Amino acid sequence: MHNLNEQTVTRAVLDLIADTPSRRLKSVLTSLITHLHDFAREVELTEEELQAGVSFLTATGQKCNDKRQEFILLSDVLGLSMLTVAMNNKKPVGCTESTVFGPFHVEGAPEYENGADIANGAAGEPCLVRGTVRDLDGNPIAGAQLEVWQADAAGNYDVQYPNLDIHQGRGVLRSKQDGSFEFRTVVAVAYPIPVDGPVGDLLRATGRHPWRPAHLHFMIKAKNYQTLVTHVFRNGDQYLDSDAVFGVRQTLVADWIRQPDGGYTLTYDFVLNPVD
Amino acid sequence: MHNLNEQTVTRAVLDLIADTPSRRLKSVLTSLITHLHDFAREVELTEEELQAGVSFLTATGQKCNDKRQEFILLSDVLGLSMLTVAMNNKKPVGCTESTVFGPFHVEGAPEYENGADIANGAAGEPCLVRGTVRDLDGNPIAGAQLEVWQADAAGNYDVQYPNLDIHQGRGVLRSKQDGSFEFRTVVAVAYPIPVDGPVGDLLRATGRHPWRPAHLHFMIKAKNYQTLVTHVFRNGDQYLDSDAVFGVRQTLVADWIRQPDGGYTLTYDFVLNPVD
Repeated sequence: MHNLNEQTVTRAVLDLIADTPSRRLKSVLTSLITHLHDFAREVELTEEELQAGVSFLTATGQKCNDKRQEFILLSDVLGLSMLTVAMNNKKPVGCTESTVFGPFHVEGAPEYENGADIANGAAGEPCLVRGTVRDLDGNPIAGAQLEVWQADAAGNYDVQYPNLDIHQGRGVLRSKQDGSFEFRTVVAVAYPIPVDGPVGDLLRATGRHPWRPAHLHFMIKAKNYQTLVTHVFRNGDQYLDSDAVFGVRQTLVADWIRQPDGGYTLTYDFVLNPVD
Repeated sequence: MHNLNEQTVTRAVLDLIADTPSRRLKSVLTSLITHLHDFAREVELTEEELQAGVSFLTATGQKCNDKRQEFILLSDVLGLSMLTVAMNNKKPVGCTESTVFGPFHVEGAPEYENGADIANGAAGEPCLVRGTVRDLDGNPIAGAQLEVWQADAAGNYDVQYPNLDIHQGRGVLRSKQDGSFEFRTVVAVAYPIPVDGPVGDLLRATGRHPWRPAHLHFMIKAKNYQTLVTHVFRNGDQYLDSDAVFGVRQTLVADWIRQPDGGYTLTYDFVLNPVD
């Protein structure tokens, strides 16, 4: 381990982790270290650039708090989140597809009965959302837990309002005996991901826009089925073809239908994949 | 950009940064994103592992403050720092070699006259350090700025003592007309890098020890010469062959010589590389 150069240092690091007790951790770190070193050699990374990277990652970590997860956002805009979701959620045709989790989920969302208004005061045009949770054979799944979260008419999630201490546009409900669910809320709109942190700096430096097409988040859990983390996207949104986090899937796009009373309805049926 | 899978998402991300104004940034990010995605595919990264990575990086950022830089430490223990130093500091034979900067440098170290005691109260056995700063032809370099920093007898840098508001074992001085310098301090000892943060967790999980062989840090600046960031390591140290940050170079190892009065002397001559 004397006199290591930019080639031999890689072997030296890998030798040092050779006794890692977890085979999986050893395998992941071996690949990570190899790619990290290959990257640095490939671009001939300068010392100033390494320092800039350290500063960027430090600022990213320090932007995080209990309501903000800048590293998830970074993973999202780099396509790493969607890559991981796609790789880990291969399902039979007919199952609802998964998409990114995003940085705005929080624990402790309030529970609601079917028919309740989960907007809880969030601004926006009224919308009735309904649908069913079923298996691949079309059988209803009763008692599935549906967690929903969304932005308001200003494009903000409740957690983005520093002085708001209630949950808005966020709630948990359960499917009925016939697999159906129904709740009131406000219409989701397109919004920019937060750009006041390092991820915003990265988007600006690379000439990228921060917009996501309008969507509702769903996380659906039911016994004997794989947990489904997904969105329903609004048909016609101008950002469906340039989602800043690469999450759009055609099967997840649906119509928000305007009603005579001025409100909207959205109908979407979910199909869960059984646990192996 | 619809229906991206774990293969096609990489091209989609690279397409989105195609208009990055800085050619260098585009080039670095292209390589980084490609390697990041290749890594995730190669190990078939799970969603739980991505979340664990996000949590690890978040904790690393949040461990940083004005006296602690956990991301530099992470780069150091992954060999990335030494790789970058080695790649960017190729010099003619005869020049003093460079090594890692480390996380313990701080701005604003006090200035001292030659002969002064930079320990400034730090615990340890007394040591006189002296040497010269020269060019490749052996000519003295007068007025070179030498910044020195080191750990005390307990293995701690001054910035690791939360309630210490003075600088200890840290100072700036200038070489004299004949290129010589001289200062008093305490003997450097081997020490473990800080293990109370995420980097410590990583070392424990991979079965690695956290020790660095005893060394003095030097950063030497002189007009018309490349800045030299290096250490002088103590000969005989048990960790010279397993430095936790891969920094040892044989030419940087020197003897701390015990004197009849019980103190030590270290003599080391530096040779700077001219700016191109």
